[in-house]
Amino acid sequence: MPKTIPKDSVGIVTPQCLHFDEPLTLRSGKVIASYDLMVETYGTLNAAKSNAILICHALSGDHHAAGYHTDADGKPGWWDTCIGPGKPIDTSQFFVVCLNNLGGCAGSTGPTSLNPETGTFYGPDFPVVTVRDWVNSQLRLMHRLGIAQWAAVIGGSLGGMQVMRWSVSYPEKVRHAIMIAVAPKLSAQNIAFNEVARQSITADPNFHNGRYLEHGTYPKKGVMLARMVGHITYLSDSAMREKFGKSVDDPANPAITNPSIKSNFGRDLRSGKLSFGLDTDFQVESYLHYQGERFSERFDANTYLLMTKALDYFDPSVDYEGDLARTFANSNCRFLLISFSSDWRFPPERTREIVDALLEARKPVSYLEIEADQGHDAFLLPVPRYMEALTTYLQRVSDEVNSQGAKS
Amino acid sequence: MPKTIPKDSVGIVTPQCLHFDEPLTLRSGKVIASYDLMVETYGTLNAAKSNAILICHALSGDHHAAGYHTDADGKPGWWDTCIGPGKPIDTSQFFVVCLNNLGGCAGSTGPTSLNPETGTFYGPDFPVVTVRDWVNSQLRLMHRLGIAQWAAVIGGSLGGMQVMRWSVSYPEKVRHAIMIAVAPKLSAQNIAFNEVARQSITADPNFHNGRYLEHGTYPKKGVMLARMVGHITYLSDSAMREKFGKSVDDPANPAITNPSIKSNFGRDLRSGKLSFGLDTDFQVESYLHYQGERFSERFDANTYLLMTKALDYFDPSVDYEGDLARTFANSNCRFLLISFSSDWRFPPERTREIVDALLEARKPVSYLEIEADQGHDAFLLPVPRYMEALTTYLQRVSDEVNSQGAKS
Repeated sequence: MPKTIPKDSVGIVTPQCLHFDEPLTLRSGKVIASYDLMVETYGTLNAAKSNAILICHALSGDHHAAGYHTDADGKPGWWDTCIGPGKPIDTSQFFVVCLNNLGGCAGSTGPTSLNPETGTFYGPDFPVVTVRDWVNSQLRLMHRLGIAQWAAVIGGSLGGMQVMRWSVSYPEKVRHAIMIAVAPKLSAQNIAFNEVARQSITADPNFHNGRYLEHGTYPKKGVMLARMVGHITYLSDSAMREKFGKSVDDPANPAITNPSIKSNFGRDLRSGKLSFGLDTDFQVESYLHYQGERFSERFDANTYLLMTKALDYFDPSVDYEGDLARTFANSNCRFLLISFSSDWRFPPERTREIVDALLEARKPVSYLEIEADQGHDAFLLPVPRYMEALTTYLQRVSDEVNSQGAKS
Repeated sequence: MPKTIPKDSVGIVTPQCLHFDEPLTLRSGKVIASYDLMVETYGTLNAAKSNAILICHALSGDHHAAGYHTDADGKPGWWDTCIGPGKPIDTSQFFVVCLNNLGGCAGSTGPTSLNPETGTFYGPDFPVVTVRDWVNSQLRLMHRLGIAQWAAVIGGSLGGMQVMRWSVSYPEKVRHAIMIAVAPKLSAQNIAFNEVARQSITADPNFHNGRYLEHGTYPKKGVMLARMVGHITYLSDSAMREKFGKSVDDPANPAITNPSIKSNFGRDLRSGKLSFGLDTDFQVESYLHYQGERFSERFDANTYLLMTKALDYFDPSVDYEGDLARTFANSNCRFLLISFSSDWRFPPERTREIVDALLEARKPVSYLEIEADQGHDAFLLPVPRYMEALTTYLQRVSDEVNSQGAKS
C-alpha cells in the first residue's frame, strides 16, 4: 500500500468500459457482433486533439498501464515507470490512452465474457484475433475519442507489433511509431516456445477443451507451466545468473524475503543441502514456480492461447510477398526502434531487419540498441539510457504538437 | 532396413548385461545393493589392454552407440557417425565400451526394474544418481573388463560431464579426456528448462507420483512436453529457421515425407492457410510434436527426471569451494575440449571456463571451437571439421598406444 502516492504518478485512475455496437469482421472471416473495450486514459486531451498517445500492451498486459486504482493498491500499472507527469511519456504534455485488447481477460470482451448467442461463456468459441484485428478495434476507439491522428503509438514486444500494423494499415493516423523489443515476425524458435506453452495448457485435465469455466475448474498447472516457459525467454541467461547465482542466505535477494515462497526456496549446490529428490534445489526453480503461480491466479487460459496465436500469426509482409520494405511503402510516420543487447527472444538483429526495411523504403527512422542485461524484460524496466532516449524523443514530439497548436 | 550393412559400420552387435553384486553407495548416502549394467563393446581389446575407450552417453542415450542389433534395424546406434572402422573413433584401432547408465531405461537397473526389496517396480523409489555415482559404477565395469587405464574417455553434453568427473576422481585411470559441448555446471537458465520439463511430467495425471507402471498408465503427454522443451534447446535459432523457414510444399523437407506426420503438418504463413484455431499452423510445431511423441514411446518418465537432476547437480568444483582450477589440480590426463558456435545450451564461453581452469592448473589442454549451425545437437552430427579434429586427435592416441605396446 503506498502511504502517499508518488508525485510523479498519474494518481488514482478509473478504467472505463466502452461498448461498441458495430460488428467487427476479423481476419479469420468471423464477425464479433458487438464488444466492450476496457480503457484507461491519463493526462488531458488538448483542444486540437493532437496530443494523444496510444499505448499497446504485450502478451500479459492490460489497460492499467499507470497509476493506482485505489489508495490501497500495492502496485501501480504495468508501465508506471514510463508514464506520468515528468516521466518519459509525460502526462503533463500528452493524453495517454491504453486499452485491454479484444480477447483479453481484464474486462474487454474475451473468452471469459458471456457469448450473447449461447448465453454462456465464450471460452474456446471466442474467435482467434490477430494484431490487425486489434488495430482495427483500436481505430474505433480512436474515433470514439474524437482523435484524428495519434501523436504517437507506442508498444513493446507484441505491443510493438501493433505499432507496426498501425503504421502500415493507417499511415495517415500515426505521426510517430515507437516500437520496442520487437521483431518483424516470430522465428521458428519463438513459435516453438509458444506451442509448448499451448500444449501445457491444453494437456491440463482441468482444461476441458477450453470449457473449464462451465466445469467450474481452471487449468492452473498448465497456465503455470506455460508462464514458466515464457518467463525463461523473457530473462537473459546472464540476468538469471545475476539473480540466482547467490546462495539462499543472501538477504539481498528479494525473492527470499517473499513469504509466499516456501522455506525450501533457495537451496543451492553451494549450501551442500541437496534434496536428492524432486524437491526444488535451486532458487531459480522456486522463483519460476512463484511467478507461474501468481500469473495463473490472474490470467485466463483461453486468453493466453489467443495471445500466443496472435504472436505466431503476425507478419505484415504477408500482403507484400514477404517484402518488408514494400510493406512500409505507404507509411507516413517517423519511426523510433529500440532493442536491448541481451534480449534473446527478439534480439537486436531482428529489430534491425525492420530498420533495414524502413531505410530501404526511405522512411525516417531512428534506432537505438541499449546495452542492458535484463533480456526481453528490459522493455518494462527503467533502464536509464532507454528512459533518456524515450524522454528526448517524446520531448521533440511534444514540441511538434505545441508548435502545431501555435500555428492553428 | 539397411539392405547391406555399410563397410564402415561395426556391423551387428549384441549388448551384454553385466551383473554387479557389490553394494554401491551413492552420493545421496543411499545404497544400491546390486545392479545390472547393459554394455556394448566394439573392436578388440589388445593384449596390453591399453586401447580401451569409454563412451559416456548424454541425457537420452544408452549403450547402443554404434552398429545394428539385427539385419532389420532401420537405424544404427546413436553415435554411429563417429564409431566404426576408419571412423574418428576407429574400432580397428580401439576397443570401445559404451554402457547404459544406472537409472537408465535401456536395460541397466533403473526405475523400470524390479526393486528386490518390494518385489515391484522401483519407479520413484529409485534413488537419485549423480554423475559421480555413474563414474563409480563405470569404474567397476572397468575392473570387470580388466582394464587398468582408459586410453580415452569421451562424451558430449552430460556425457562430457562424466568425462570431467573421471579426470578429477580417477586421475591415474584416464590418459585422454575428450569433452564435447560441455559446461562446468548448469546455468540458472539450464536448470530452469530442466525444471519445466520435470513439472510437465509430474503434472501429467497419468504420472501417479511416479507409480504409473503399477497403475498401468504412462505420462505420455508430460514426457512429450518435456522433450519438446528440451528439443528447442538442442537446436539453434538459425538451424530452426533453416529447417522450417520453407513452406509445406518443399519436398526437400524430410519431415514432410514422414507418413506419421498428419496432413496438416506444414501449414505456413506464406501459404495463407491459417487455421485460426489451435491446430498446428507451422512446420516447427508438427516437428516438435513428432519428436516428442517418438521420444515418449521409448523413454521412461522417471529416468528422464533422474537424468535432469544429475545434470542440475553436476558441479565438480563443489569439493573445492567453487575453484575449478583447484578441482583439476590432481588430474593427470591430456584434455581435448570441443564446442560449437551456435550451441546456446552449453555455449563456447561455458566450455572456455573449463579450458581456462585447466590452463590455470597447468594441465595439457587442446580446445577447438567449431563453426556449426546445428546448435547443441551438433555434437551428434558428422560436422566435417569436428570429425577431422577427432580423427586427428585419436590417431595420435592410437600411435601412443601402439608405441607403448612396442616398448612393453
